[in-house]
Amino acid sequence: MEFSEHIKTANVEDVVLRQPLHPPSRGALCITGHHLLFSDREDQSCSQVLLLLRNIDAIEKSVENLLGYSSLFSFADHGERSGSSGTITIKCKDLRVIQIDIPGMEQCLNIAHSIETLSNLDSVPEMYPFFYRPSDQSLDGQWGLSTPEQFFRETKGITSVWRLSIVNRDYSVCPSYPASVIVPKSIDDETLKKVAKFRHGGRFPVLCYYHHKNGMVIVRSSQPLIGANRKRCGEDERLLQAVIGSSDKGFIIDTRSSQQSQQARMTGGGFEPKSCYSSWRRLHRHMEKGKALQESLIKLVEACGDESHNMDRWLSKLENSKWLSHVQTALSTAGLVAECVERDGHSVLVHGSEGTDSTLLISTLAQLIMDPRCRTLEGFLCLLEREWVQAGHPFQHRCAHSAYSHARLQQESPVFLLLLDCVWQLWRQFPLALGFSEALLLKLATEAYASNYGSFLCNTEQERYALGVKEKTYCLFRAVLRPMEREVYSNPLYDPTDLAIWPSVHPQSLQLWRGFFLRWTPQNRHLEEAQEEIRNMITEWGKLAPSRC
Amino acid sequence: MEFSEHIKTANVEDVVLRQPLHPPSRGALCITGHHLLFSDREDQSCSQVLLLLRNIDAIEKSVENLLGYSSLFSFADHGERSGSSGTITIKCKDLRVIQIDIPGMEQCLNIAHSIETLSNLDSVPEMYPFFYRPSDQSLDGQWGLSTPEQFFRETKGITSVWRLSIVNRDYSVCPSYPASVIVPKSIDDETLKKVAKFRHGGRFPVLCYYHHKNGMVIVRSSQPLIGANRKRCGEDERLLQAVIGSSDKGFIIDTRSSQQSQQARMTGGGFEPKSCYSSWRRLHRHMEKGKALQESLIKLVEACGDESHNMDRWLSKLENSKWLSHVQTALSTAGLVAECVERDGHSVLVHGSEGTDSTLLISTLAQLIMDPRCRTLEGFLCLLEREWVQAGHPFQHRCAHSAYSHARLQQESPVFLLLLDCVWQLWRQFPLALGFSEALLLKLATEAYASNYGSFLCNTEQERYALGVKEKTYCLFRAVLRPMEREVYSNPLYDPTDLAIWPSVHPQSLQLWRGFFLRWTPQNRHLEEAQEEIRNMITEWGKLAPSRC
Repeated sequence: MEFSEHIKTANVEDVVLRQPLHPPSRGALCITGHHLLFSDREDQSCSQVLLLLRNIDAIEKSVENLLGYSSLFSFADHGERSGSSGTITIKCKDLRVIQIDIPGMEQCLNIAHSIETLSNLDSVPEMYPFFYRPSDQSLDGQWGLSTPEQFFRETKGITSVWRLSIVNRDYSVCPSYPASVIVPKSIDDETLKKVAKFRHGGRFPVLCYYHHKNGMVIVRSSQPLIGANRKRCGEDERLLQAVIGSSDKGFIIDTRSSQQSQQARMTGGGFEPKSCYSSWRRLHRHMEKGKALQESLIKLVEACGDESHNMDRWLSKLENSKWLSHVQTALSTAGLVAECVERDGHSVLVHGSEGTDSTLLISTLAQLIMDPRCRTLEGFLCLLEREWVQAGHPFQHRCAHSAYSHARLQQESPVFLLLLDCVWQLWRQFPLALGFSEALLLKLATEAYASNYGSFLCNTEQERYALGVKEKTYCLFRAVLRPMEREVYSNPLYDPTDLAIWPSVHPQSLQLWRGFFLRWTPQNRHLEEAQEEIRNMITEWGKLAPSRC
Repeated sequence: MEFSEHIKTANVEDVVLRQPLHPPSRGALCITGHHLLFSDREDQSCSQVLLLLRNIDAIEKSVENLLGYSSLFSFADHGERSGSSGTITIKCKDLRVIQIDIPGMEQCLNIAHSIETLSNLDSVPEMYPFFYRPSDQSLDGQWGLSTPEQFFRETKGITSVWRLSIVNRDYSVCPSYPASVIVPKSIDDETLKKVAKFRHGGRFPVLCYYHHKNGMVIVRSSQPLIGANRKRCGEDERLLQAVIGSSDKGFIIDTRSSQQSQQARMTGGGFEPKSCYSSWRRLHRHMEKGKALQESLIKLVEACGDESHNMDRWLSKLENSKWLSHVQTALSTAGLVAECVERDGHSVLVHGSEGTDSTLLISTLAQLIMDPRCRTLEGFLCLLEREWVQAGHPFQHRCAHSAYSHARLQQESPVFLLLLDCVWQLWRQFPLALGFSEALLLKLATEAYASNYGSFLCNTEQERYALGVKEKTYCLFRAVLRPMEREVYSNPLYDPTDLAIWPSVHPQSLQLWRGFFLRWTPQNRHLEEAQEEIRNMITEWGKLAPSRC
């Protein structure tokens, strides 16, 4: 396909751009296969705005004709109104809202049509990361930060009871797992294949965290397929027994309510019955996901955009969105997992239904709480790569649209955004303990939805392999670690601690992540200034006192 | 009166102290006329806790008898239960809650009784500031930071149309005003005396702010006493005309709703009718004060202490308290005043009924928004001294009790606390623009209710004069400016701007002041650590780069 067939009008002069935090400016608009480019003709420095079309979540068109009234309209009713001008309101996935006034209705409609089409292309090889070729980066060398093999090699003490299996090397045992996974040493590949058949989507239990202080682990999987007839799988039972080994018991944290996991049996799923998994104690924590979570985000963003200036209404809408309740549940469930592992010395299996959403959310947060190595800038990026990219969080499905899209919800769900919000809460409660900055969380929240990089493309490693993502695109995580970027994304106050960081989950302790949800308001600009000032001071200070930095 | 008559048991051994953010500790309790002193006998460093009795807002007693059940009881039912032990829960005006377990019921009741009596003494000369004699400070020298004379002298350009009047030198014209006030040059003292009779409590219009950029001013007063018969006062009309001089109009910001100011006529008060004050345009902004504000605080503090872990309930209680709505109204009304003066170039008269509460809140905030000189550490303290202490905010009445007291509300109202909250919102929105730290706001919020210093004693300058407060007590504002203290109470990121700082009053931009309302929760401790770290860095940096600091 040629992008040009979707572009009837590529350039328009004399448009007015209104974007948050800037005065309106007049200039030329240009649309390409992947970008919207605005050049300010009046500004001496000829400033430009480059917007990735993929970042556009929804657009609205309105036209002002010669009679001076404004109306929203659909494509059907456009005739010859050459004296009219139109306004396109662009709502971005990073929550920015931009308005563009375009002279001439025909041009306006052409531009709008191009944006609508090009921002919704869902063929991965046509996406911008496959075209992005920065002059200062090379496609050679390692793509990601780490592989399961490296992780296994670098985790001290793990080899005594765990091994690396390549049973999934052709992605046939579990399509959403990476080629290598870590499993109990005593369980052979044939057993794994049988267990995979007994787990939703083939996601058999694999190790995701080894707590080197006491040898306990976090294992994650999808639900067992016991179904209405309470089917058993001896291999599955044996695998889980091997996970706890000689210790007396383990905990299963099921991210569904007890009732939900019972109901799952009607559709072939289910839970681990006490009778068959006698060493495991099951705890249920209902976590919202899928459509409910997406709707929560939509309500929250709507509330944040409410301009009624009514305090009661705002607080009531904030409550009604339930977003902060989801944050609270995620952090407290992760705290529960960390308590089992770190305080009580038990291994934990985490799963819900598919094991690709809440499961990853909980295992990631629990690791951040317990493991100081996950809290450095590199460590955190490795954690995301391991637990989200490699572990098969379906980014393409979940992040296809954000809070503004009118498209019918398919598989969209802001689970990754919820993770970043929870990490932000940790970051705020422990301002010294995490090695990265809020800017990193904001960057990730943007890049997951629209990016120059290939890291968040596709749903699984298998898909990335098939499309050559690792050969043909750049890796975001590596880009973030380049010296200039590293400075922006590091926490200048970082003072590492070996202790677990137990978040307070009192509702009073959790806050709206204003840095993200109110990112485009002037108020936030001042907060960024303060961060900048601290950063400058510390840079200056580093030059003066090189021994410390 | 001797304090000792209220102290039956002065010392108790073997008590257990439970306070927020610390593990319980065992030691000895001692009660004196003004303090509760706890000494930890186990701790090698022999740590002590010294609590000003005046800081105690409410106490609860419960006794655990030999049967092991716990009961709340009143003084009436205490008999001989020597085997019992009692627990006193102390709720402080700074929102700290402390528990003390005391062996022996008799001792417990004696201590409780002493606390109740001594913490409620309302004779000013018996209060602690009259007994506080620190070795490193002297009672000689100037008491406050500035006088009305100094303010007048230091305000450039003011002398052309304004003069200092000592018509109130014996406090007979207006009991709640200081001895000197600033009035239009063309208005003589005899006229002022007549105007005072036409204004509630004698609070005739006086200048509180001169905007040197355009010569416009903020004037404040109490309501005019027009009453049901629409009484007029030619002198009052003349005075207000002199305020605007040759400019075309001024604005009256009435801190009551239009309906309230109409109703005030029934009790002798009222507003400036358009017919008599034709150059003035009146705007009404309803601001809650008195009992409604006190109840809002009580609800908010109750919500902050809710331990139900329910996010919806918390947000709903936060909304229900209306505290943030009061913050919003105060900031937006102050913004309106600043807009009139700075943007539109008009003088403003602010008043409500008495002119001692909301009026001062608004005039103070408007000055902070407009005037960079009010935003330094000294400037802010001078502003508070001028607009609250000298201008006659009745601290003794308003701050007698805080959110926990079961005493029937008399004249208590947290107007000054609301001011500090609003200043905190400004501070958070403009982290570089204010020269003081959050620690200063917290200090002031504590000291207004219970203090070693005399600054917040009494209701008026007249009372302070009569009791010799300025000769016999130390001044808080001066204490805060000593070198060591100055470091703690300064903003290390301060980068002054000459521009007005316009606060965002979108409900989304306003936040709960967690530093105060959740001050005693562990989470807040970490935030303090971060502040401390920034401060340390900047101190270190200052040593290395002395040219900048």
